[in-house]
Amino acid sequence: MGRIEEIIKRIGPVDKKLMVEAQKRLDNLTKPQDSLGRLEELAKKVVGITGEKNPSFKNKVIFTMAGDHGVVKEGVSAFPQEVTPQMVYNFIRGRAGINVLARHIGARVIVVDMGVASELKMKNEKLKIKKIEYGTKNMAKGPAMTREEAIESIEAGIEVFEEEYKKGIDILGLGDMGIGNTTPSSAVTAVITGRPVEEVTGRGTGINDGIFENKIKVIKRAIKLNRPNPKDPIDVLAKVGGFEIGGLAGSFLAAAAHRIPVVTDGFIVTAGALIAFELEPKVKDYIFASHSSVEVGHRAILERMRLRPLLDLDMRLGEGTGACLGISLIEVGVKILTEMATFESAEVSKSIEEK
Amino acid sequence: MGRIEEIIKRIGPVDKKLMVEAQKRLDNLTKPQDSLGRLEELAKKVVGITGEKNPSFKNKVIFTMAGDHGVVKEGVSAFPQEVTPQMVYNFIRGRAGINVLARHIGARVIVVDMGVASELKMKNEKLKIKKIEYGTKNMAKGPAMTREEAIESIEAGIEVFEEEYKKGIDILGLGDMGIGNTTPSSAVTAVITGRPVEEVTGRGTGINDGIFENKIKVIKRAIKLNRPNPKDPIDVLAKVGGFEIGGLAGSFLAAAAHRIPVVTDGFIVTAGALIAFELEPKVKDYIFASHSSVEVGHRAILERMRLRPLLDLDMRLGEGTGACLGISLIEVGVKILTEMATFESAEVSKSIEEK
Repeated sequence: MGRIEEIIKRIGPVDKKLMVEAQKRLDNLTKPQDSLGRLEELAKKVVGITGEKNPSFKNKVIFTMAGDHGVVKEGVSAFPQEVTPQMVYNFIRGRAGINVLARHIGARVIVVDMGVASELKMKNEKLKIKKIEYGTKNMAKGPAMTREEAIESIEAGIEVFEEEYKKGIDILGLGDMGIGNTTPSSAVTAVITGRPVEEVTGRGTGINDGIFENKIKVIKRAIKLNRPNPKDPIDVLAKVGGFEIGGLAGSFLAAAAHRIPVVTDGFIVTAGALIAFELEPKVKDYIFASHSSVEVGHRAILERMRLRPLLDLDMRLGEGTGACLGISLIEVGVKILTEMATFESAEVSKSIEEK
Repeated sequence: MGRIEEIIKRIGPVDKKLMVEAQKRLDNLTKPQDSLGRLEELAKKVVGITGEKNPSFKNKVIFTMAGDHGVVKEGVSAFPQEVTPQMVYNFIRGRAGINVLARHIGARVIVVDMGVASELKMKNEKLKIKKIEYGTKNMAKGPAMTREEAIESIEAGIEVFEEEYKKGIDILGLGDMGIGNTTPSSAVTAVITGRPVEEVTGRGTGINDGIFENKIKVIKRAIKLNRPNPKDPIDVLAKVGGFEIGGLAGSFLAAAAHRIPVVTDGFIVTAGALIAFELEPKVKDYIFASHSSVEVGHRAILERMRLRPLLDLDMRLGEGTGACLGISLIEVGVKILTEMATFESAEVSKSIEEK
């Protein structure tokens, strides 16, 4: 049995009984029932996932997975490919957006080279090299990677999780970096959801009308040429995906198998979640959707997975920045559950209707 | 000149020139332009408010203002009036929703008795007694308070701010507690915005259909009987408002005068902001709308003030809980501005279009 099947087999149901108990406790806290809205839902979901009545997030972790994309040769991005390794260095030095957000919530950031096109010259415990290849191949000319590489990328994502899990993970946020990576994300989304390419393609880092029209054409050509099978997520990943998307899918599966809440970020991470979801729909119960990205394809995936994002702040950076904001809200929900007084303990009178 | 006029006179314009500079800096950080969406707006607004290029929030403060309402005699709430002081004790003991949220963001909570109907028996530095009266009068039978009391309540809000400002306030969140206080908030909103009572009245702590219909009737009766002048916010506050609403209005004005960013919470706090706004529209430039409450009247006020809420999490607790979440996002925005690397400093290549 392969590593992917093995991890999928370990994904069990969430603990519904404990969730009912958590709801009872939430209803008995010194506040009108349901008055903390979605924060209460979050707490309940964490209880169901972890199987703990009093969960807490000592170890918050972000994986920012980086990869390059052969399809950038078609001119689909506003930034040159050299930016991928440059940003990896920026992450390791702690000066990128994700570092600011992760510090704010007290999370550690692990950067993973899933397939950056150049050799990363920095040695650092925060950087993991799981390079499958030096970037994917140009999917407008043939498959982005082989089926074996697609499997390897998912397995690498499982491995990253399991290595870091030993050091402690109570909640995981996922992030991405890779010039051109909204292009494979749109392709994956179009194939799996069956929606037209135009409906799931956005402007990525901020491309102009000309590049945008070209991007749509390139994605259509790649799908037509490679004919990925929508029922076979590994085939989709191989033909029109990316190494970081595969790695992210693996980490989603591993987090669910280990009963660790896992939080999406923007479009690329959510494309990884979609691959995981198509492999095993139960993974969804372990996932929190942090925010609604400006990228239109993002919403298409969330709708398919029936996940409702927590935030809508016009963000489209990726890296795990949205995941950090999501983790902060989930942590607040958990603290509500575990730190607030009940009506009895605080000697506060209940609502007339509840008496 | 009265204390209110004096503080209003001190509210100046925000620093537009510094905001332009902040925008330039934001555009030069290692991320696609505008990719952190509203977080960037928040940073820019804080720079304009404070006049500081590198703002930081060492002292985050929440004022939770409590008051009682004579109108509860009409049966408009699901909770008995005794809950107001009980919750004040809960706040002081640190076990209510606001305490959990404030700890999460590292804020200190000051509870203010603006007009609780009973004598608070606890002495504590976190509790300020600014009691105008033992609850308002029943507005369904006559004015909630005298014009002098309305002025006093606003002045008390200014005073609370100035006392705490001496101890340090870099950002202020406002909150409320008071059984029955969505009723005056709806009345104030209906009068000032000119909208029908039905459109600005919600279910508060969670009342059933019968109480809800009665609540609408009571508000209509109070407005008809007292004829508050929509052009005179102090008249509106006196006739159909509440002591905590006045106190909140005063703190909004004082924060703006001292160039301190001030963050709304739910419906009651925003009704306080509305009174402040009607007295001096410039106050708006100093206010951040944290979230969109389940209470419908809340949106009517935000629309009038043209403030766009940051969050929509189905919350309706009050106390300052929404303000805490807002402060956390504003702080993230500020950290983005002050902690992220620029393209030059990180040696990251810029977008092709920007070259």
